[in-house]
Amino acid sequence: MLAFTGSRLDRADNDRADPERLAGYMNWRARLLALDGLMPGMDQAGALAWGTLADAPEDAELVFLGLDGGKPCFACVPAAGDAAPRLANPAVWQAMASLTPDDLAIYGGARSIVDWHARHRFCAQCGGTTRIAKGGWQRECNQCAASHFPRTDPVAIMLVEYDGRLMLGRGKGWPEGRFSALAGFVEPGESIEEGVAREVLEESGVKVRDVTYIASQPWPFPSQLMIGCHGYADDDALVVDETELAEIRWFTREEVAASLAGDGPFAAPPAQAIAHHLLTWWRDR
Amino acid sequence: MLAFTGSRLDRADNDRADPERLAGYMNWRARLLALDGLMPGMDQAGALAWGTLADAPEDAELVFLGLDGGKPCFACVPAAGDAAPRLANPAVWQAMASLTPDDLAIYGGARSIVDWHARHRFCAQCGGTTRIAKGGWQRECNQCAASHFPRTDPVAIMLVEYDGRLMLGRGKGWPEGRFSALAGFVEPGESIEEGVAREVLEESGVKVRDVTYIASQPWPFPSQLMIGCHGYADDDALVVDETELAEIRWFTREEVAASLAGDGPFAAPPAQAIAHHLLTWWRDR
Ligand SMILES: [Zn+2]
Ligand SMILES: [Zn+2]
Repeated sequence: MLAFTGSRLDRADNDRADPERLAGYMNWRARLLALDGLMPGMDQAGALAWGTLADAPEDAELVFLGLDGGKPCFACVPAAGDAAPRLANPAVWQAMASLTPDDLAIYGGARSIVDWHARHRFCAQCGGTTRIAKGGWQRECNQCAASHFPRTDPVAIMLVEYDGRLMLGRGKGWPEGRFSALAGFVEPGESIEEGVAREVLEESGVKVRDVTYIASQPWPFPSQLMIGCHGYADDDALVVDETELAEIRWFTREEVAASLAGDGPFAAPPAQAIAHHLLTWWRDR
Repeated sequence: MLAFTGSRLDRADNDRADPERLAGYMNWRARLLALDGLMPGMDQAGALAWGTLADAPEDAELVFLGLDGGKPCFACVPAAGDAAPRLANPAVWQAMASLTPDDLAIYGGARSIVDWHARHRFCAQCGGTTRIAKGGWQRECNQCAASHFPRTDPVAIMLVEYDGRLMLGRGKGWPEGRFSALAGFVEPGESIEEGVAREVLEESGVKVRDVTYIASQPWPFPSQLMIGCHGYADDDALVVDETELAEIRWFTREEVAASLAGDGPFAAPPAQAIAHHLLTWWRDR
């Protein structure tokens, strides 16, 4: 299973629009996710730590995350979001390594949405202040009444194959030897498949065809929907986009397998990233 | 080919971050998409109408759409966006029916991005004013320096099958007899497949499994990425979510085929919608 998927919460979406039900959930049984800013709190057993609503400040903005075996779960919007999450925080990596998959999924989803609230306290349409609504799944403008919704950005990440070899890139600023699949945001006006073709052409100079979907993953830094694809290249001649990439290379199946095993020509992406899943899929294909 | 895909423009993404190149594109050869607010202008032959940059107001915000056979193409941000596009405007339907596929794709992509600019003149983080940047593929805050990027919302739309029949729903307020595939936004913290399962369970009470991806389409009202999927239901007993749907019914392959041909038990979605494509895919499967 891909990291950040498999949350055990029932989002109970229909209850978000029902103020009476929401109010009913804010009771003594409700649990509040322990967060230090955007970082997860963990209990002594290494699970996500939870408190009660009494732990939240009086004027806290609370997001209804869903029901955990019937128990209402909330998270509190922190004072500040993270406009440029770089994954550099060791607490994030520790959480990713030690939390159970369903705890990690709960943390990831909660992180994305409270970070969105913290960075959307004003209305992009008029500059007025906004207030939380619908259990945290909406904000409303106090000035122009516009509604705003949590944001999720679709990102295409793709394996490009030519003659049994795979195209992988090393981003600018990445350590020597670290390679992964190319990726980029799907833009307004294009399908997933068109986004894949545009990104590959732009970054590598290679035309890609027969794009197929493989898997998807939510990625909470800050809130991407990673859409994993595979396509075939028409050619292996590279024209590397040096504004984004340090290098691109073609790797054989044996090289990919060895690198996934920690003993190959490149450092593979971490197990939590969909890129790791895609490489494993391709190795076993 | 799905409507709104197949644009002939080269987005020339790498040039967006290059002020000199962008300035060089703003020349006498550049073309400006004719828009009346968000509605497309059409020439006498029924194609998209284009003017020159001289047609734009002095202080216009210009979005670089890309190159059309080497010619730089721009669109001008209108005074107002459309926070609640309802597809009710006959000019939109006329354009969708009469434009060539690549013209329609250019219009759709341009509409999404200029609408985003028109509704994001302020910074959601601090309430300050923002200015256009990177050829219209970014906005920057004049006060806190935050960067903002055009938004695309992933929406899962799904065919759910049980024992050779297909689940279709009629939305609240839709005309009697009009049915389509269920759909909903993919939320922070879930994969496409999890979003499909949650939406189907929420709207129909049915558990769905073996979700597969079929096709995707950009939908510019205002800027969705429609992600078409198929899954199998465990059961056909329905518990309809009456907050969103008027009714749900199961249809046989023969009923779907007849309705697509205009002579069946329900009014099928229009040819431009991915739902129509999905129904056709299922009919022919
Ligand atoms: Zn407002
Ligand atoms: Zn700002």
